Amino acid sequence: MRTTAFPTLRTPAGEVPAGAPAWNPQRPGAMPHHRYRPAHDRVALPLTDRSWPSRRLTRAPLWVPVDLRDGNQALAEPMDAARKRRMFDLLVAMGFKEIEVGYPSASETDFGFVRHLAESGAVPDDVTVSVFTAAREDLIDRTIASVEGLPRTLVHLYTATAPVWRDVVLGRSRNELRAMILDAATYLMRRAEERPGADIRFEFSPEVFNLTEPDYVLEVCDSLTERWEASWDRPVVHNLPATVEIATPNVYADQIEYMHRHLARRDAVILSVHPHNDRGTGVACAELAVLAGAQRVEGCLFGNGERTGNVDLVTLALNLYAQGVDPMVDFSDIDGVREVVEHCNRLPVHPRHPYGGELVHTAFSGTHQDAIAKGMAEHAKRAAEQGVPASEAAWAVPYLPIDPADIGRTYEEVIRINSQSGKGGIAHLLHTHHGLDLPRGMRPDFSRAVQRVTDDTGRELSAKELWELFRTTYLAPADEGAVETVSWSTAETAPGAHEFTCVLRIDGREHSCRGTGNGPLAALTDALRTAGVSVDILGYSEHATAAGPDSPAVAYAECRVDGTTCWGAGWDTSVLTASVSSVMAAVNRALGGRS
Amino acid sequence: MRTTAFPTLRTPAGEVPAGAPAWNPQRPGAMPHHRYRPAHDRVALPLTDRSWPSRRLTRAPLWVPVDLRDGNQALAEPMDAARKRRMFDLLVAMGFKEIEVGYPSASETDFGFVRHLAESGAVPDDVTVSVFTAAREDLIDRTIASVEGLPRTLVHLYTATAPVWRDVVLGRSRNELRAMILDAATYLMRRAEERPGADIRFEFSPEVFNLTEPDYVLEVCDSLTERWEASWDRPVVHNLPATVEIATPNVYADQIEYMHRHLARRDAVILSVHPHNDRGTGVACAELAVLAGAQRVEGCLFGNGERTGNVDLVTLALNLYAQGVDPMVDFSDIDGVREVVEHCNRLPVHPRHPYGGELVHTAFSGTHQDAIAKGMAEHAKRAAEQGVPASEAAWAVPYLPIDPADIGRTYEEVIRINSQSGKGGIAHLLHTHHGLDLPRGMRPDFSRAVQRVTDDTGRELSAKELWELFRTTYLAPADEGAVETVSWSTAETAPGAHEFTCVLRIDGREHSCRGTGNGPLAALTDALRTAGVSVDILGYSEHATAAGPDSPAVAYAECRVDGTTCWGAGWDTSVLTASVSSVMAAVNRALGGRS
Repeated sequence: MRTTAFPTLRTPAGEVPAGAPAWNPQRPGAMPHHRYRPAHDRVALPLTDRSWPSRRLTRAPLWVPVDLRDGNQALAEPMDAARKRRMFDLLVAMGFKEIEVGYPSASETDFGFVRHLAESGAVPDDVTVSVFTAAREDLIDRTIASVEGLPRTLVHLYTATAPVWRDVVLGRSRNELRAMILDAATYLMRRAEERPGADIRFEFSPEVFNLTEPDYVLEVCDSLTERWEASWDRPVVHNLPATVEIATPNVYADQIEYMHRHLARRDAVILSVHPHNDRGTGVACAELAVLAGAQRVEGCLFGNGERTGNVDLVTLALNLYAQGVDPMVDFSDIDGVREVVEHCNRLPVHPRHPYGGELVHTAFSGTHQDAIAKGMAEHAKRAAEQGVPASEAAWAVPYLPIDPADIGRTYEEVIRINSQSGKGGIAHLLHTHHGLDLPRGMRPDFSRAVQRVTDDTGRELSAKELWELFRTTYLAPADEGAVETVSWSTAETAPGAHEFTCVLRIDGREHSCRGTGNGPLAALTDALRTAGVSVDILGYSEHATAAGPDSPAVAYAECRVDGTTCWGAGWDTSVLTASVSSVMAAVNRALGGRS
Repeated sequence: MRTTAFPTLRTPAGEVPAGAPAWNPQRPGAMPHHRYRPAHDRVALPLTDRSWPSRRLTRAPLWVPVDLRDGNQALAEPMDAARKRRMFDLLVAMGFKEIEVGYPSASETDFGFVRHLAESGAVPDDVTVSVFTAAREDLIDRTIASVEGLPRTLVHLYTATAPVWRDVVLGRSRNELRAMILDAATYLMRRAEERPGADIRFEFSPEVFNLTEPDYVLEVCDSLTERWEASWDRPVVHNLPATVEIATPNVYADQIEYMHRHLARRDAVILSVHPHNDRGTGVACAELAVLAGAQRVEGCLFGNGERTGNVDLVTLALNLYAQGVDPMVDFSDIDGVREVVEHCNRLPVHPRHPYGGELVHTAFSGTHQDAIAKGMAEHAKRAAEQGVPASEAAWAVPYLPIDPADIGRTYEEVIRINSQSGKGGIAHLLHTHHGLDLPRGMRPDFSRAVQRVTDDTGRELSAKELWELFRTTYLAPADEGAVETVSWSTAETAPGAHEFTCVLRIDGREHSCRGTGNGPLAALTDALRTAGVSVDILGYSEHATAAGPDSPAVAYAECRVDGTTCWGAGWDTSVLTASVSSVMAAVNRALGGRS
């Protein structure tokens, strides 16, 4: 061992203890990182005494899917009317109670869909439909026209408020923009008041909230709370989007806690969040924001939405579930949900997408498989001890955060075999699919056989191929090889005295043999000895492969012949035949050098 | 407006203010959430006075890609030797300095690959190769054999330490397991000492760290720090995996800060993290962990890995980049990186994957496109004012966290047109691809024409199709329609006095006409008037479509004919011809009712 001179690792207090040069030999890169400014320099972050890191999630917030609006406007091919309706019906069936359905003033398709909802009776009594609009009178008129006849609607007014947007996009000062928003809000309220029968509530989104000065957001939101005459029995929704993620998620949580603490008439405000996922931390932003005081979360199923997507409501809801919190929406058929979402969005869900991806319950690696197999066995045992079905017992299986069965998945996909797999997973699969309980000593033997195949082909082995490999390796040699049993029979000639009579074909020549012993297998080895084949049975076990008297038995034998030790197996409805076959298979493997 | 009776929204102090029933009408679900326990009940979380939420990321940690080990063992078809080498070379080329290359004692392919690295000279002088092994003597022997001849290696020893694993999988008590780990560590050190020329360092992973009792992890890690004789000039790596995510990412950050504060001989320890992504918060866990004191991060490119994947190093590195921090690895050709990763893993990168996905720089929605177009123009202007190339100027364009060009992307993909798009994006595309600068008043007109097509077809419109639509809408009518110019000429008969002479074909009949005015277009309308066509030109503009004297000009005219107002356009190398065409196009559109 050589000693390399590393500089001290001691970290200056108060600074992030990142790498000291010698143990972190990374070199400055060539990318122009100096073009970008940290969030801390772009926006005031006024909170220092946050309380959210000490809190826990104990209840589901109000989930508001925006698949039909924000998600839809990010699709290369937006949903047609049929797809929209299919998505809407899915969201209703899952239990969502507030659903954003479109931007009716911006697209004929959206307008038509809102009218369809109003006229078709597709909206259940306890579901509120939300429509999105910019803060302009003609668009508000069109929006109000779209919801005619809907009993409960939320009109969602938005305006970007961040400095770059004010300066470059809107060309308005802080005061000018606030006046414009208030005018639009007033106009909206007047138009809503002209529909006395309708229950129309209001939502406001200061778009790019996370890059807007906190005092300005407060100023605008508080003005709206007042203008819209919000009260505890008729609250307004203030929705604070991370339109484009700009910093680590704790910064967003601080921003939300600041708003939560300072919003006027807090008990007349539903504090909502709307994270996107540009930094891959949309889920974290939403969760920490709920810790920080948010009561409502807007997002999309499987995280569809502009660019990197809106926050994923599937992951958020099932994250709560995995912590023992009722998600208040139904994911018991996650593949059914995924199918509709993939159809409507014409975008795939990634194989590694949390909870819903094709590979997320699958273990290929040997150690993981071994742990899962042991954990599943322990789970079944514990459930039986408690007298409850396994599907209801408390879940604590290694590497599986939730029971795949809870979301409609099978265990088939949990353990799959390739060159990275090990004896535990292989034994588990043979047990699950064929009722085999391989003796502990046999497992590494079969595992080596599997690895030879998977290393050679580089491919995965299906459960069917695994069985076929077991069959050709351990069962088939009973009937193929140097020593063949042409016919055989056994008899108990006296209590504890057994006789084995057989015709053996050895290298093409037939031998009539007879042996005796204290059991049929001892008599068999005695018979083999008379034909010149000396066999020691080192290990032997046998079990039924299923419940019931008719189920086949499987026998395993480990035999030594001329110094070579091999495992063999037999499979028959007769326990005697299975055991004789297992010995003959082991003998032939040893004689053929097939270990 | 109807008033619905909502209960108070007032939130009991100290509790997460989640939904009160009436404004949150979600109902308890049918899924058996009671089967799961929150992380807070499963593991002691001893930290209350955390300091990480007040910190900022200012330096890149040591990135350690584990694509060739953890990533590889999660693939249905593990990488063959050629794929492994291609991935290794990519990682080296990107600037990674510590690379985990395999689990040589578990797979022949991995063993062979480590030997290949040792014998082929593929490992540069400043790159350390890491190999993974379980804590068993025969596996350690095989591991040490694999690295023979490599100048710098890190041997990464792991053992699961969480209670469920100890009880169900390993069948060992705390003390028994600690003794086993220490024995293996001692054995490893002895074996390494037998290779005096080799620089072999050590890493330990208490697998499932995040579900292990903190005091037990400390006990085990501190014993190893001592046993391995770690010092400031020869540090040990303690790698603390979130093997399966169990809680919101702040909990992991607390766990890491606790370890950071309490690990013995802290300046002899490199504190490393290894987050997975079961809850979709792997990136957040890594970032908050670095804030909490971690110096090193293990992960995979684009988040490949067991189940939901390892934490994504691409996102982590580019998240730093977007904050102005040098990522110390090179992503200037992200599509090239993606191509290799997709080839090696035989898994796709999702279209919405942060930074690298196909759709992540694309805006379809009108308001986003408008803001981006304005932002890009402002960016170009600011760069010009500062006298720097646009590719070097500070970046602050709405909806684009980083300049796509920095990672080798083009602007082609930024704005794409479908039924959700608006006038800003359409104008931007015509400008970018064809040099057109549509008059402000004309933009809504063309936008409606685009929306008719996209609403009808439901499809996206390519830049080429957009141009074709512009051509048939505004340019072609000059030569097709009620009024055709068979021939025409102009003359300036005196200063400021213009004459327009032409033969017009109107409804199949030819008319020779002549008009006068203070310019050619005034003279043209006068000539049209003599043929019975009364035209007012309401607006007019013209510009070159590129730099240089030979570039074509485009003219836009808004004309009123018999109370109908239409836009037309002309395109010609002659500014005069272009302007005449634009008027004739507008006239024909108005006469044909083609507004």
